[in-house]
Parts: sequence; structure tokens; C-alpha cells
Amino acid sequence: MPHTEALLFPLAMIALVAEAMTAALAAGRRKMDWLGVAMLGCITALGGGSVRDVLLGHYPLWWVDSPYLLLVTGGAALLTIGLARFVHRFHAIFLLLDAIGLVVFTIMGCNIALGMNQPLLIVVVAGMITGCVGGVLRDVLCNDVPLLFRSELYASVSIVTGLLYIGGIKLQVSPDLVIAAAFAVGLTFRLLAIRLKLEMPKFVYDSDNA
Amino acid sequence: MPHTEALLFPLAMIALVAEAMTAALAAGRRKMDWLGVAMLGCITALGGGSVRDVLLGHYPLWWVDSPYLLLVTGGAALLTIGLARFVHRFHAIFLLLDAIGLVVFTIMGCNIALGMNQPLLIVVVAGMITGCVGGVLRDVLCNDVPLLFRSELYASVSIVTGLLYIGGIKLQVSPDLVIAAAFAVGLTFRLLAIRLKLEMPKFVYDSDNA
Amino acid sequence: MPHTEALLFPLAMIALVAEAMTAALAAGRRKMDWLGVAMLGCITALGGGSVRDVLLGHYPLWWVDSPYLLLVTGGAALLTIGLARFVHRFHAIFLLLDAIGLVVFTIMGCNIALGMNQPLLIVVVAGMITGCVGGVLRDVLCNDVPLLFRSELYASVSIVTGLLYIGGIKLQVSPDLVIAAAFAVGLTFRLLAIRLKLEMPKFVYDSDNA
Repeated sequence: MPHTEALLFPLAMIALVAEAMTAALAAGRRKMDWLGVAMLGCITALGGGSVRDVLLGHYPLWWVDSPYLLLVTGGAALLTIGLARFVHRFHAIFLLLDAIGLVVFTIMGCNIALGMNQPLLIVVVAGMITGCVGGVLRDVLCNDVPLLFRSELYASVSIVTGLLYIGGIKLQVSPDLVIAAAFAVGLTFRLLAIRLKLEMPKFVYDSDNA
Repeated sequence: MPHTEALLFPLAMIALVAEAMTAALAAGRRKMDWLGVAMLGCITALGGGSVRDVLLGHYPLWWVDSPYLLLVTGGAALLTIGLARFVHRFHAIFLLLDAIGLVVFTIMGCNIALGMNQPLLIVVVAGMITGCVGGVLRDVLCNDVPLLFRSELYASVSIVTGLLYIGGIKLQVSPDLVIAAAFAVGLTFRLLAIRLKLEMPKFVYDSDNA
Repeated sequence: MPHTEALLFPLAMIALVAEAMTAALAAGRRKMDWLGVAMLGCITALGGGSVRDVLLGHYPLWWVDSPYLLLVTGGAALLTIGLARFVHRFHAIFLLLDAIGLVVFTIMGCNIALGMNQPLLIVVVAGMITGCVGGVLRDVLCNDVPLLFRSELYASVSIVTGLLYIGGIKLQVSPDLVIAAAFAVGLTFRLLAIRLKLEMPKFVYDSDNA
């Protein structure tokens, strides 16, 4: 991360922990063992950025360069085992943390791709991959059809956040201000989508003919 | 792509569109939302080549270098939503386009690996990965056992096409002629396999003992 | 592989064959065709090392550099089709070979990461990925929740083996001795875990509230 690190870093830690905790709950629904819970936490929290880096050829990966991230995410997942009985009381907080994760990861992903001078469409996609793919890996490893493709506005929030961030940077607005604005708008959009149960239209195709 | 680009390029575009459209129909069977349809279209059409490039360390990936491919494939997938009610009438055309996709992607994948001076077995495998892995990603994301491993002659067509292509190139036949021949034979083989319901023998193992 | 190659190489071949054979049996349970069996064998046996190399940016991948490995693993998988009716008699041998595979792949993965001067935590993780991810790919492609996350001590064996290996190397013990010791302890641990049905505690989370 470039010089915006100071602002993004604490948010990124919150996002990693939040993603690892949601993964731990998914692991618990599949009756995984403790090490499986920790691994799924790491993969979910760090998988989006890893896929982005591999696709862009951006080495070393974040967690390879900063291995303590494995301890943070694995530890958060393990901690969730102990907290699980209280988790339902904090359901709203979880949704908030997960939304923060989505928006922060998106901004970080755009940031990496901008730093590589990628074309704008790739920057948006890099943000989406960073924000969304961790959850896809979680769902595939739990043997579910990824929620990303079916549910609420999630990838859309990532796109809007990314476009705002890129637009601001290209317009040479102060990076800290751009991050704050993209963060605020993205988070609001996501929370509104949850609250109002906004969904994108679905494509339902039943025929056996094709 | 080297100088054979002129011949392969239009076929590659047809192949990308065809793969994206089949992915859109699969997405519709899983009731994905519109953005999910577009994403699955991109992943299916561009995923085989991406996996090949990542495994070979061949950067930048095609779509990272040519981001408009994301618009082509995502757009084709979205268009399919509107066309779905007519699709069953065009079932045969779909199968044809998908077969073109398989053969063209295979040739393109071999071409990339040849350009990297890979050993011949890796060239064949690079062709297979390019031709077949997109469909595997589609099936995994739709929570199915990949069709590739179970059904009709699909990977076999890719192998035969690749071997023909490589053989011709190594024998210093004119590249355009080699492409045309590999394309014609591969396509015929695939269409015959569909028409005659050719299948490879299956391995059925029921025991719970291992 | 550095100079420890002489000791690890024959064990690695046994491990590759064992992993390919277990994959073939899984393929047979899903009624895959022969080419699917061969492909699943290659992916399972070589997939863990491939994922490790892609994540670490360690090119070329082993099988790209040594394509005969595809023939070894694909061939072993195909051979298993013929042997399947006798396999239940050799169930114990299969478990032993699979355990050898886990331990040897772990040591090889640690070895690669050590050669790249990765931090110790990454070395352990590289060993785990090499030892365990092939089976995860097999399970995902067979549309199962990966056994790795749910069952017996498997990843734990990999961690213990990796820690022993790294500890010995860092203490400047002779590499051959370290390999032998890590191999013996890891294998014993794994076989004890199977024999005594040792399991890690599971996290079971049923609530629909989160």
C-alpha cells in the first residue's frame, strides 16, 4: 500500500477480522474442526487479495510479505468459536463489519492496481476481486453456490465504491479525502441495501433445452 | 498471439461470446442475479486462459492486457438474459458455437505455450487447460461436479486438436494451414461425438472400503 | 529441490502415485470417465505444489519443468481403474501411502520455501499447502466439502512435520537426518491418528441468526 496506508491500515485490520469471523461461523455450520475453522478464516479474509495478486502478477502476496496476517485472521476465526453462543446478539455488528470489509478491501484492491498503472476497468475489477472473492472461496469450500452471484447488492457496492475512488484519484482530489468519501458512500450503500432488502433482478432460466 | 492472430482473432471472439452465453444459461438455472450472470460469463469465457497463464507464469493475462474482453464476455452474458426465451430454438447453434470455442481456445493455448518454448506435453496440456478449464470453473461455481470429467468427448477433442496443431507446426507446415486443419478436424470430431453420443468408458467405483 | 533431492526423490514419486490413486478412487465414486480419472489424478497429486508455487511466485512449476510427472500421475490414476476390484484388500496400504504422501509433500514444500528465504511461518504454510491442497482440489472437483477441514489429524500432521523439519534445518542438523526424523515422526503421528481415531475438536454452529 502506498502512502494512504496510515488511513487504510486500521480499517483493513478490522476488515480482515470481520471476514475471518464470518468464515468461522460458516465453518461451524459445516462442523469443521478447529484447524479447519482457522484455515477457512485465513482463506476467506486473505483469499480475495491473493487471487487479485496472482491474476495481476503482483508479488509477493500481502500475507507472504506480512505473515502475521495469518495469525490475525486465523486467531480471529478461532476466537469466534468461543464467542459463537453470543454471536446472534451481535448479528447487526457482524453485518456492519462485513460491510466495512467489503468497502475497505475494494479500496485497497483499486489502490494496488492503480499503483501498477493498470487500465481503469482493471482497477475496478481488481477492487471487486479483492472485496468479493474471499467470500466466493468460502462458499465453494463449504460446498455452496456462492452468495455473491445470487444475493443482495454486494458486488454492486464494490463497483460503486471502486468507481468513486478511482474518479477521485484521477481528479487529483486528496487521497485521504477520496478514501473517506468512497468509504462513506460504499458503506452507506451496502447498509441501505441490507436494510431495504435491495436486490438486483435475477435471471431465472428453467428450460432443459439448452 | 503471434502472427496467426489475423485468422484466430475473429474465431476467438466467437468462442468468447459462445462460452459466455452458455455460462449465462447455467447462471439462470441457479437463479443468479444480473451481475452474477455477467461475472460468471467473464469467468467461464476467460478463466481457462487465465489459469493457463497463471500456471505458466505468462503475464500479463489476456484480459488484463485487453480489458475490453471483459465487456465483450460480460455483455454477451447479459444479452443472453434477453434472448433466453428463444434460446431453445437455437440449441444446435449453441452446441456449434461451444464446439468452436473449445477448438479455438485449444489452438490459442497451444500457441501461447509454443511461444514460450515449453515441452510438447506442456503445449498439449496448455491447450486443454485453455479449452476446458473455463467450463470447470463454471460448474464448480454452480456447485456441480464438472461435466468435463464425466461427459462426452470434450477433453479428448482438445487433445486431438492440440496434437494436430503441434504436429503441423513442428513439421513446418504453413501456420494458417495448420490452424485450418486442426480447427476442421477438431470441430468435426466434437460434432460427431455429440451427434453419435460418443463417450469414453467410465470408471464406476462403489465400494466404501477405500 | 536442493541437494536433499537424492533422499526425497523416490519418496516423492511414491507420494505422487499414492495421491493419484486415491484421486482415481474418488473419481470412480463420481462415475467419471477415464480421461477425467487421469485428470483428477494429476490435479490431486500435483495441485498442492502448484498452488504453493503460484502463491509464492516460484516459477516454473514442478510439472511444467518436468512434464513426465503428468504421465506418472495420470498413469497411476488409470492403472487404478484396473486395480479397483482388488483395492479394498489393500486399504491399509493405501492409507500408508497417503500418509507418506502427506509427510513427503510437506517436507518438499518447506524445502522450497526455505530455498526462497521465506519467513518461518510461511515455510510452515508452504509445507501445509503442498501436503494438503491437492486433496482439497480433489474434494471440490468431486463436489464435496473438503475432508481436510472436517476430519482426522491431517493438516496438524503437516504442521508438526513442518515445524520439526524447519527446527532441524535451523539448528544446522544434517539435512538427511532432519528429513529422516521429520518423516518418521510425521508418519508415526499420522498413522497413530488413524489407528486411534484421534480427531481435533469440532466447531458446531447451528444458529440461523448469523
